[in-house]
Amino acid sequence: MIQTLYAIGVGPGDPELMTLKGARLIRAADVIVTPVGDRSETSIALKIVEDLLEPARQQIVTHLYPMKRPGAELETFWQNSAAEIAGFLAQGLRVVFITLGDPSLYSTFLYLYRQLQQSHAEVLVEIVPGVTSVNAAAGRAMLPLALGDERLAILPATYENERLEQAFDAFDTVVLMKVHRVFPRIRALLEDKGLAENVVFARRVGMPDERIHRSLDAVQPDELDYLSLLIVRRSKEEK
Amino acid sequence: MIQTLYAIGVGPGDPELMTLKGARLIRAADVIVTPVGDRSETSIALKIVEDLLEPARQQIVTHLYPMKRPGAELETFWQNSAAEIAGFLAQGLRVVFITLGDPSLYSTFLYLYRQLQQSHAEVLVEIVPGVTSVNAAAGRAMLPLALGDERLAILPATYENERLEQAFDAFDTVVLMKVHRVFPRIRALLEDKGLAENVVFARRVGMPDERIHRSLDAVQPDELDYLSLLIVRRSKEEK
Repeated sequence: MIQTLYAIGVGPGDPELMTLKGARLIRAADVIVTPVGDRSETSIALKIVEDLLEPARQQIVTHLYPMKRPGAELETFWQNSAAEIAGFLAQGLRVVFITLGDPSLYSTFLYLYRQLQQSHAEVLVEIVPGVTSVNAAAGRAMLPLALGDERLAILPATYENERLEQAFDAFDTVVLMKVHRVFPRIRALLEDKGLAENVVFARRVGMPDERIHRSLDAVQPDELDYLSLLIVRRSKEEK
Repeated sequence: MIQTLYAIGVGPGDPELMTLKGARLIRAADVIVTPVGDRSETSIALKIVEDLLEPARQQIVTHLYPMKRPGAELETFWQNSAAEIAGFLAQGLRVVFITLGDPSLYSTFLYLYRQLQQSHAEVLVEIVPGVTSVNAAAGRAMLPLALGDERLAILPATYENERLEQAFDAFDTVVLMKVHRVFPRIRALLEDKGLAENVVFARRVGMPDERIHRSLDAVQPDELDYLSLLIVRRSKEEK
């Protein structure tokens, strides 16, 4: 029996931005596994796929990811997660792991993959790539991430100013992820660098509470959550 | 009458990696516009969507992109392309523009968009984002593009070594596009930097002639085309 876990990127938020392959595998699955960061929070990935599911037939398994826990606890988390998935597969069940955006970009899936390789080498894994929030945000803003021979950098906004300045100097487009934690500092930096007019703020693209702003003045404090990002273009011709 | 042009990223190659929205709009379209680089070449984007099309009902319009022509000729190309699309929309036809991967990342679509804004401001444009070859390649190789607080850079391999070295030094993952033009130089550089073991070569991911190599020694000269890229990780733990 071949046991394959499909790790599916369900895209940035709009259920229609799922891939045909992702949707097909989710519909066919017996078990849908999804991590959540907080017990009070519904999995965003699960929300995206919800219209595809048949609760009477399919089992939804939510793994509570220990966001603020030490390394050892995190290791135990992945061990348990891998063991449960391997157990489902050994029963002959079709299992998918769903993740927001794409499994290769700022997803925790690769940690699970490493754990499976270590302790459940019989499990094959296939990644089904998805549309990222970065591409979706650029599309909504009608901004290029890269044109012609341009260079693109993607990094968390939490790096120190010096690092961010290096990126602004060397790249045509810089995408700053997780901007909610450091918004006032980033805003001051962009103003100092003369880049404050070249920025698009995007949050939860394709979800009902999507926000796109072409001015940092328009960003409201309650819009700053961990799914908010900034696209900074060196030149502002395209806006 | 609202005239909307949909610019659809059809993904990296596998028709199943199209989005549900992209597939729906392509099926519903009256006119499908696609650029090709060479008259002898079939549009790769068209090949990807081919099973969705109804040739008896839908019109396929191929715009021959002047790859090696001076700026003035290119400007005329975009003017003609925009005028033809605006003409179709003015007739009440449903028009989609299809592009490989995602319209925001190394696609020519944004040039067409600028031209439409300038000369056909009545045309609304909506981008439907797609899965990029970068995400698809990382998924096939089971490599993270970015984990946790990591940084990702994407740039053409054609930059001089100094620039590339800066990227290798400052980023956890560097994706080098269009590596076919400069493969021997890049290979030597990666060997010099001690990064030759940390590289995945990917070409035409999801297409019948897909190639993935975890060693540069395995790359054959005829595999080096403009859809080939390298993913370089600073550390090799994940391979």
